[in-house]
Amino acid sequence: MNQTPLSRLEADLSGQGLDAMLITDPKHIYYLTGYASNPHERFMGLMLARGEDPLLIVPALDADAAAAASSVSNIATHSDTDNPYALFDRYQGRLGRVGLEKEYVTVSRYEQLTSALGSASFEDVGPLLRALRVNKTPDEVARIRHAIYLIEETLRQGLTHVRAGVTEIELVAEMEYQMKKLGADGPSFDTMVLTGPKTGLPHGTPGDRKLQHGDLLMFDMGVYAAGYASDITRTFAFGDISPELRTIYNTVLAANEAAIQVVKPGITCASVDHAARQVTIDAGYGERFMHRVGHGLGIDVHEYPSLHGENTDLLQAGTVFTIEPGIYTAAGGVRIEDDVLVTETGVEVLTTYSKELQILTD
Amino acid sequence: MNQTPLSRLEADLSGQGLDAMLITDPKHIYYLTGYASNPHERFMGLMLARGEDPLLIVPALDADAAAAASSVSNIATHSDTDNPYALFDRYQGRLGRVGLEKEYVTVSRYEQLTSALGSASFEDVGPLLRALRVNKTPDEVARIRHAIYLIEETLRQGLTHVRAGVTEIELVAEMEYQMKKLGADGPSFDTMVLTGPKTGLPHGTPGDRKLQHGDLLMFDMGVYAAGYASDITRTFAFGDISPELRTIYNTVLAANEAAIQVVKPGITCASVDHAARQVTIDAGYGERFMHRVGHGLGIDVHEYPSLHGENTDLLQAGTVFTIEPGIYTAAGGVRIEDDVLVTETGVEVLTTYSKELQILTD
Repeated sequence: MNQTPLSRLEADLSGQGLDAMLITDPKHIYYLTGYASNPHERFMGLMLARGEDPLLIVPALDADAAAAASSVSNIATHSDTDNPYALFDRYQGRLGRVGLEKEYVTVSRYEQLTSALGSASFEDVGPLLRALRVNKTPDEVARIRHAIYLIEETLRQGLTHVRAGVTEIELVAEMEYQMKKLGADGPSFDTMVLTGPKTGLPHGTPGDRKLQHGDLLMFDMGVYAAGYASDITRTFAFGDISPELRTIYNTVLAANEAAIQVVKPGITCASVDHAARQVTIDAGYGERFMHRVGHGLGIDVHEYPSLHGENTDLLQAGTVFTIEPGIYTAAGGVRIEDDVLVTETGVEVLTTYSKELQILTD
Repeated sequence: MNQTPLSRLEADLSGQGLDAMLITDPKHIYYLTGYASNPHERFMGLMLARGEDPLLIVPALDADAAAAASSVSNIATHSDTDNPYALFDRYQGRLGRVGLEKEYVTVSRYEQLTSALGSASFEDVGPLLRALRVNKTPDEVARIRHAIYLIEETLRQGLTHVRAGVTEIELVAEMEYQMKKLGADGPSFDTMVLTGPKTGLPHGTPGDRKLQHGDLLMFDMGVYAAGYASDITRTFAFGDISPELRTIYNTVLAANEAAIQVVKPGITCASVDHAARQVTIDAGYGERFMHRVGHGLGIDVHEYPSLHGENTDLLQAGTVFTIEPGIYTAAGGVRIEDDVLVTETGVEVLTTYSKELQILTD
């Protein structure tokens, strides 16, 4: 039970009938080695060959950083004038089936590897890595919890800047400033602040619109911290809002809670979506909830699983995902998004920020 | 001479012996059509087939945005439940050689396209697109200049927050806040602020270290604005610094100026690197300058050409790139980075921020 993801993956090589795996997605390398880096166009890879120690290949200028952070101590480097594929010469002709992330590796790199590795054939190991990553360790959950703490504190502090006339992009700037001050590595996606009718756009872009009394005010944002992401949405009223917007708010809140209610290991991803969607249908707003109920959360802010109405995959204990029903109308929209952990017996809601309708004033 | 990049590329199809090109890199699609979008995992492509109008393929939910922004009016869409590759059925068996960006297309997508297009063989058109993009139009240079103005103004305003005890990440937060306030779309890469010995890491990560008297203080940052990137590095002294750090500063400055001095059309990329490197070698710091001297800049913050010591490609008028020599030691490091334009007769330095050693105080 104390195996690391890396040792589990190495042990899996023979089970998968693979002679080697070459992992090149930086997110996967971080997950497996603890070394976080974006090598841009330079080559970085983690080579797992049967019967050999894992080998981490990094650009020469990252050698010290990799040695300091990586659990893999066997490190090879290449400078900007080297051909990094020459590092594979030692495997030439020795490897049959080699695992690659086919949704990450480019054709150009594939052709270089095909040439460097001679006789090898390549299999997609993306699904294998996805399956590893879906089961969060307690350490990973702690990191997500910390990222949630940071974004909730950001929201609390940023709300003190809400006043009539403030623009959406000014509030974005305030929020992103608070994130950094609090120690987050940065936003986990483009911070979304929408006001008034613009809250009715599920994918609206913050702009120059000024906040007015009677507006809904929506924040959808998250941070990266220690390699893990948070993602939360809260919608507020600025002054009095119309009875219809109140009804929409309460419907979305009920949908959010209905979805949380059904989460436990062994149910389908689809059933979480259905539980929320039914509440919106019953209230006459089914057609105004036009996206899936949520998505996996971890090293990537959108990762496996996808919580949509046709996904028959079963939830497993240790999975973290978002629950974010929304209703969008011309008068405005509401979305309420929590991050939840599937436990052995049910669910733990990791987000703690109040979901009761809060009326903000100047 | 008034041909658009798209019409030049179409005209090039027969010259390249290609039946079609399928462009899928969103940056290239933006360059060719004016439509900027990140489709994430969804399929987006620009199909140029000989004797046919260009066809832009976008996810259904982006149809309106594409129609509004794209110079290509022939648009096909696919919804999340469609197989986007079915849109290629009409080409089945009709195409021989098809151009693709092999440094962008993933193996997974390549396998889908190979199957969808039947008999087609695929050629890399990355170099062709790169060759188009390397010649910046006056409009493109104006956009880069504006992105430089925004980052230099950010630096000026952010420097007012420098004081003993401020942490690297607090300064990152200040800088990114200023960028947004000034109207940038966002940072063009992770803003880097390093202090003291951490400036000796070419790719260090900002953290909790507090600025102290006697430190070097390095900012490497840029913004995106109107689709184009800036990228600048300046290194400052906070109070008195050691004579060795002064020597390093002056050496890097001389290396930066030596490289600028040689830039003109027709010289090799390598010679720019050599000019800077020789200065560091002569000063006894050659081994402490362990990266290339610069990289192309435009829609991508790192684009063609790569200014390294073995690149025999010749510089052309209209190319924009960075010149950023650095020296990194245990006591600290200095990098000074400008963005330059190759002109018909030589070089124009687009960055304007002073490079003389500036001693900051509380």
